[in-house]
Parts: sequence; C-alpha cells; structure tokens
Amino acid sequence: MTIGARTRLVFLAGDPIAHTKGYDEYAAAFAASGLDAAYLPAHVPAGRLHAFLAGLRWASNVAGVVATVPHKLEALACGEPDERARRAGSANVLRADGTGGWKATQVDGEGFLAAAEAAGITLAGQRVQMLGAGGAGRAVAMAIASRSPAALLVHDPDPARVATLVADLQREFPSCRAAVARERADVLVNCSPIGMGDDRRLPLPPELIPAAGAVYDIVNRPDTGLLREAAARGCRVDHGRSMMLAEIPLILQFLLR
Amino acid sequence: MTIGARTRLVFLAGDPIAHTKGYDEYAAAFAASGLDAAYLPAHVPAGRLHAFLAGLRWASNVAGVVATVPHKLEALACGEPDERARRAGSANVLRADGTGGWKATQVDGEGFLAAAEAAGITLAGQRVQMLGAGGAGRAVAMAIASRSPAALLVHDPDPARVATLVADLQREFPSCRAAVARERADVLVNCSPIGMGDDRRLPLPPELIPAAGAVYDIVNRPDTGLLREAAARGCRVDHGRSMMLAEIPLILQFLLR
Repeated sequence: MTIGARTRLVFLAGDPIAHTKGYDEYAAAFAASGLDAAYLPAHVPAGRLHAFLAGLRWASNVAGVVATVPHKLEALACGEPDERARRAGSANVLRADGTGGWKATQVDGEGFLAAAEAAGITLAGQRVQMLGAGGAGRAVAMAIASRSPAALLVHDPDPARVATLVADLQREFPSCRAAVARERADVLVNCSPIGMGDDRRLPLPPELIPAAGAVYDIVNRPDTGLLREAAARGCRVDHGRSMMLAEIPLILQFLLR
Repeated sequence: MTIGARTRLVFLAGDPIAHTKGYDEYAAAFAASGLDAAYLPAHVPAGRLHAFLAGLRWASNVAGVVATVPHKLEALACGEPDERARRAGSANVLRADGTGGWKATQVDGEGFLAAAEAAGITLAGQRVQMLGAGGAGRAVAMAIASRSPAALLVHDPDPARVATLVADLQREFPSCRAAVARERADVLVNCSPIGMGDDRRLPLPPELIPAAGAVYDIVNRPDTGLLREAAARGCRVDHGRSMMLAEIPLILQFLLR
C-alpha cells in the first residue's frame, strides 16, 4: 500500500530510534489487512512524549503512537489507561480518541506470553528471574505473575522502582511469590535495555544464567551477549522479534478498529 | 525506498486533505535523489498549524512541513521567513531548524512561473487578471509582477485582503500597474479555491474568460469548470499539476539539503 491522501499515520516514538525495527513487518500487516496506514519512526527524546502528542492531536489522520524506550512510563500519563495499562503501570500504545485525548494500553505482557509460549518456554511452576523494572519490564512481570510461577524474582539497578514493582505484583497477584532478588533461576527474562544496539554487555553475571533452562531477551536481536552465553549453556532461547510480531495484531486491533 | 528507522518525515498539512495529490510524485523524487524520506498527509484544521508544529518540533527526524490550503498565511507566522516568503506575505514550506524553530519559504511563485513558461503562457507585456488573494495568490501575484505585465488586476471576495495585496504589489514592484479589478484580460490565473474537489463552479462570470488567450488554474485537476470553458474558447490552458511538479525539487532542496 503506497502512501496517499487518505493514509492514516501510526508513529513509533523512541530514543534512540536508529536501532528500531518492525517497519517492514507493520507494512506487511497493513497490506494483509487492507488498511491504508503507515508506520513511521518518530525520534522523540525522553520526557517529550507528552509535548509531541499535544501537537499530533491536531492531525486527525493520526491513528496513534506506539511507545518504546524511554517512553513507556510517560505514555501511561499521556492517556486514559485500560486495565492492562493500569495494572502494568506503563503503556506502549496510545490511540487518538477523536476529541484531542488519547487512550492508552499495554500489550507487552500479552506479546511476551504469546512469544514465550510459542518458543516452548514454560512459566507455571518455574522460578523466574526478571531483569529490568521499566515500562516493558513492568508489563512482562505482571504477565509472568498471571501464569503462577514458583517464584518471580526481579532485579533493577534502581532500588526504588524495583521495590515498587514487587509491591505492585504482590498487590495484583497475592498468591505469587514475588521478591527483589538476583539469583540463578529456571527461566531468565531480560527486560533491561542492556544488549540494545551495539551494547554487547551481559545484563547479569554469567554464573547467574540458567544451566539448561530458558532465556528470553526482549531486545530485538538474536545475538545479544546474553543469548550467546545462554545458548552455550544449553538453554532454550528466544528474543524480542517474536514479541514484536505477536504484538502487531494486538496493536492494529487497538489502533485501527 | 521503504520506510525504516532512519526515514525523515515531510508532512503535507491541509484541510481538506482527501483531495490532495503528489504522494507518488514525491516518493519518486525521493527515490531518484537517493533520499530516505517520506511525504505524508496531515489533516490539520485551519488555525492549528502552529499547535501541530509545536508538537512536531520534538521529533528530530521531521524534516519539515509543506503547507497547503488553508495554512499558507498562518505558515508565515510559524517560522522565520526568507525573502520569498516575506515578499509574498505567505509561506508554503517550513523546515525544522534543529533547535525547535522553523525556517519558512514560499515557492508557489517560482513554481507558477516555471509551469506557466513551460506551458507557453507569456506574462510580460500582457494584461493579467488574477483571482484570489490568499496564501498562494499572494505568491503568484508577486511572481507575475516580477515579469513586467502590462497590467496586473486582482480580484478577491474579501475587499480588505485584495486591497492589501495590491498595496503590497505597488510597494514591491513600483513599476507594475497593479489594481483591484475584475475584467477580461489576456491571461487569467485562478488562485481562488473555486474548482477544488467536487466544486464545478466558475470562479468568475464566463464572459470574463479570455478569448483565445491563456488560462492557468492552480487547482490540481485538468477538468475544472474554468479550464473546460477556457479550452472551448480556444485558450491555451494549464493547471496546478505542472506547478506542483515544478515545486518538488525546490521544496526538497529547501527541506533536505
């Protein structure tokens, strides 16, 4: 579908932007659905999502905005959240409501679950270690908690935000054993930004990578340092591309229905 | 060139938007120049261009905005005008200056002259009747005045704005005989919006169409009521598509250099 006068616009707002992916996949999804829409990068710095949206609201052919790093927490405050976004305490999609406001949702949790399950990664009954309590991490943690793991351990370099996430997990899922910790578990999920772009660091000490367990890195590349180390240890591995692909139909349904 | 993470964005801001054209032609021009850029519709209502730009300034991959009806007068106030825009008293292109501000230019005058000359429409020494003293009309009038017509007659339903345009023409081109009038002349140039979209009205009484003269209608369609009547009278005719095509390289040079 080429761009024309009636094309609706969907922006991916992020910073950095050059490493972002999904443009061809969204174009294919629009074409497959017969939607006259375009998915476009918007290089918006941290803290400016609200100001960007305040201008976009005047273009009535803007369907909405997908928020990526570092905007997922700010996105929650930019729109009226649905239950998924409220529970996650973050949002990754904002739909123009037609009156100048925005509706917010968060599909990272559902996207992660669909991707992890398709990759054969079991969560129920497993000890799960999560890294990262930012916008995506909060959504993924809530999704994992909904699957009744044996324990859900969360680590983040920011002690206040990891404590807040664990308290929120305990409130939303009282039967889930959630704790602030960093240990070797059965399943490791990286929701920290370490590994994005050219960053080849590991997001945790290598001895804490599961032995023959499962590792999901939400960074959208197959060759992060973490995934290479995990594969060498015999782990089942997958990465953010499957999560992105699982989210596309959820996002289109929310934005363009 | 498909859209990707490094694509620069150029918006066409207008209202209505559904009748706007040029999307394929811009895409072809970007491809021919090796530019990773996209030309996108933005349906922005009258009086809201400034608010739209105030949000766009935060997306650093936005190259700029092309302004069409009804934004060409407001566009002048949104940016720092160059000499073309200052003289015209309107702007049709705004370039992000990288610090949150905008540089404004107006290429409708140059685009019209290139198109009219390519169509064999002579202006020098001719009596020229112009219709429309809005944003495009002001730019076209200044361009015609620069070509030394025998007379430049201007009509607009708004008496104040046509009087202002004629005063501005007399100041900028003291040797040009400019006047508020509506007569049958050698060359007729329609810069009023009458004829856009499904509007089949004539922008002036049919007896004022030149007899075997020349008629340029800046409306971007070949079959306006005016053009059909003019062709039936043996006039040389052309329409806004040639002006749009002449403007594309001027606009790309301004936006993406």
